[in-house]
Amino acid sequence: MTRPSPGRRPGGPDTRADVLAAARRSFAEKGFRGTTIRAVAAEASVDPSLVHHYFGTKDALFLAAMELPVDPREVLGPLIDGPVETVAERFVGAFVAVWDDPALQPALLTVVRSALEPGGDRLFSEGFLPLIVQPVGVALGLDRPEYRMTLLASQVLGLILMRYVLRVEPLASMPPAVLIATYAPTIQRYLTGELP
Amino acid sequence: MTRPSPGRRPGGPDTRADVLAAARRSFAEKGFRGTTIRAVAAEASVDPSLVHHYFGTKDALFLAAMELPVDPREVLGPLIDGPVETVAERFVGAFVAVWDDPALQPALLTVVRSALEPGGDRLFSEGFLPLIVQPVGVALGLDRPEYRMTLLASQVLGLILMRYVLRVEPLASMPPAVLIATYAPTIQRYLTGELP
Repeated sequence: MTRPSPGRRPGGPDTRADVLAAARRSFAEKGFRGTTIRAVAAEASVDPSLVHHYFGTKDALFLAAMELPVDPREVLGPLIDGPVETVAERFVGAFVAVWDDPALQPALLTVVRSALEPGGDRLFSEGFLPLIVQPVGVALGLDRPEYRMTLLASQVLGLILMRYVLRVEPLASMPPAVLIATYAPTIQRYLTGELP
Repeated sequence: MTRPSPGRRPGGPDTRADVLAAARRSFAEKGFRGTTIRAVAAEASVDPSLVHHYFGTKDALFLAAMELPVDPREVLGPLIDGPVETVAERFVGAFVAVWDDPALQPALLTVVRSALEPGGDRLFSEGFLPLIVQPVGVALGLDRPEYRMTLLASQVLGLILMRYVLRVEPLASMPPAVLIATYAPTIQRYLTGELP
């Protein structure tokens, strides 16, 4: 088995995996802003054009590197349809359905745990929030979308920790309908209510 | 330097530290319920009566082992004075004052990080919540105090992560008065509002 030139490998199934592994290391060590497609390509010993070919933009590379078990934009997208006055109900329902799914939960827990590790703060604040969470606020036409979606994230993250990571009762076994009735008013106020 | 009997040491400054270290290991490995004063004493090679002498109950041993930089019962106690209709405002104010204090924040972050490590879930759900958080709900005379204080914890934990661990803007540098106006209504509803 030969390779055309050492350090500049052609595309192939494990080249893609190597690029993703290099991207994950770089995002974790240097954060989202500190990562460049060029540096990831060098680290994976491939041409930058190959990284662009596989993943397109740095945003798309980041989302692929996170290995989310669902595309959050597909889950969050339908929320935008329907009246904004009840978006929180739809959001909590969709959120709980995805997290309660035993096929998805282990991978989601891994993502949360890695966001809480040292270096994970930048992946969260420079990557996940601006690329995934805040565009939903913009699409919903909220005033101050960044501000409001950050408040939403502060309640959702606490709920994830209590229900799925720390598994505290009664939250851990609360039926979805009760969760919706409990948390939708909070989140609706963060998204569309009066705030300081 | 001699010791009266190997494995049964008398009290002294580093005996106390040894007991605390043994307690921390046991709480982390076996959880709050799985830890006994007898087993901690054996692990530290002291008589159980000495552990009782130093710390009193298992609850008190747990609180000492957590090494909190402030006694949360002293911080939370004054909240009980004053009208329950505005307790959330007083709570968010007191909470932010303690967490924003640069002399206290590093030790508080250590406690939060250790609660999120494997095994930390039991310290949180069997120790911190029932021993520190839920008694406040009882003292406030809330109906369903455990349930309501768990909801409070789900918002407070998310706020801690966003503001102090992940340091996400605009939460990280939001002035206390704005935090109070933003979060007190949520927490007031969790404590005294209508819930499913």
